[in-house]
Amino acid sequence: MRPLIARDVAYTHGGTEMLGMLIAPEGAASLPTVVLLHDAFGLGADTVAQARRHAELGVAVFAADVWGGRHTPAGGPDIGAMVRDRGEWMGRVAAAHRAAAEQPEVDGSRLVSLGYCFGGAGALEHVRTGGDVVGAVSIHGGLDLLDRDWSAPTSGIGVLVCTGADDPMATAQQRAALEADLTAAGIHWELDLYGGVQHAFTNPRSDLPGMPPGVAYSARASERAWQSTRQFLADRFGTADAIDPIGGGA
Amino acid sequence: MRPLIARDVAYTHGGTEMLGMLIAPEGAASLPTVVLLHDAFGLGADTVAQARRHAELGVAVFAADVWGGRHTPAGGPDIGAMVRDRGEWMGRVAAAHRAAAEQPEVDGSRLVSLGYCFGGAGALEHVRTGGDVVGAVSIHGGLDLLDRDWSAPTSGIGVLVCTGADDPMATAQQRAALEADLTAAGIHWELDLYGGVQHAFTNPRSDLPGMPPGVAYSARASERAWQSTRQFLADRFGTADAIDPIGGGA
Repeated sequence: MRPLIARDVAYTHGGTEMLGMLIAPEGAASLPTVVLLHDAFGLGADTVAQARRHAELGVAVFAADVWGGRHTPAGGPDIGAMVRDRGEWMGRVAAAHRAAAEQPEVDGSRLVSLGYCFGGAGALEHVRTGGDVVGAVSIHGGLDLLDRDWSAPTSGIGVLVCTGADDPMATAQQRAALEADLTAAGIHWELDLYGGVQHAFTNPRSDLPGMPPGVAYSARASERAWQSTRQFLADRFGTADAIDPIGGGA
Repeated sequence: MRPLIARDVAYTHGGTEMLGMLIAPEGAASLPTVVLLHDAFGLGADTVAQARRHAELGVAVFAADVWGGRHTPAGGPDIGAMVRDRGEWMGRVAAAHRAAAEQPEVDGSRLVSLGYCFGGAGALEHVRTGGDVVGAVSIHGGLDLLDRDWSAPTSGIGVLVCTGADDPMATAQQRAALEADLTAAGIHWELDLYGGVQHAFTNPRSDLPGMPPGVAYSARASERAWQSTRQFLADRFGTADAIDPIGGGA
């Protein structure tokens, strides 16, 4: 395993200055790349750890800074405003993808959007609104945040959704709507559903006092989602050898 | 990799004489074991190939002979009669598990029922009716064949269901019913749903002329189901090292 390098990457959308982070194996060039969209809590230590974990698979990772200025709001209070101004939200997400594609470590024709919670919804919305990616991964994404017009994406994109069956932000009705929309859009998709599992299941902090109802950590679901993600990336990137889905980063 | 051994194993239920097959690494003793339930076409060459593929992961496999006498009906015409006489069906499935547990290569306390199509339904029904296994895997199982009384199984069992979103024998309504039943029974479960995928997706023969509507091969879904199965077996058997889910049998 080569060591990882990390550097900050400044980019903008409208008047918002954002500071993403590029993490990649040392000496890498034109690698397939994960554009990592943080959850409601912003590009903080947890998201950097997620980015490193993915980069250890042998890909580049561009961690986006959707809130801008590396803002890490404790309660993620900005989601509502962002969702109501979807143009702004998607503009910032698209800007992250453009900034990623400009890095020498990145092959801009092989991007996968990947996110958790709010970031998972952002990855799906980026595909829905015509984002130029080969795939998207939503890990306990807020399916309640999605719009329904899927006329923009080109076929051939792959989507992986990993979600808890008891997630109040991804109800059976919302899952069924997404499944129908993805199928109608000609996207090949997989939805992994975990029984008895709630929202934010990858995050051990979900079990801390003061968290809202409907949120709980699940070590098993977290591990299964990670394995599914590795398989999906290997398939999408066509690099089954490079991304050893078991040997690396476990 | 140690070479595999294979031997026939005769067993009975009521008046039916069945001839299963034990496949395991040479010299194995007390291994975690997959009890493989064939599809409608019986214990023929396809099922033996599936059994070998699983045994190459480093586990023992007992391939059941649910029809008896190694019958391999071309069209699987006996399903209806078997489903109507559920006591007979489950009696034969339970007999296969007992026969498996008696083999020296097998650790009878670590059995997973696993099947395709009709066999997937059989694996789920075996759990539902109190089968003494640590897990069950249904690959494009006929969810239309399941009963609803899940009072028998003990908690702690795990279930993996891999199914196509366009499988006419596993409709959204049937999936939702199974999900609710498994949750109520205290079983931890995962359902992997593949968009645009139909019944019998692991079998290249599904694309041959003369097959019924609603049946189609999908290389991608077949591979994804295989990876999920390996992960599930490693989790259930507690042998992540022994069952290298990527290195072996790909």
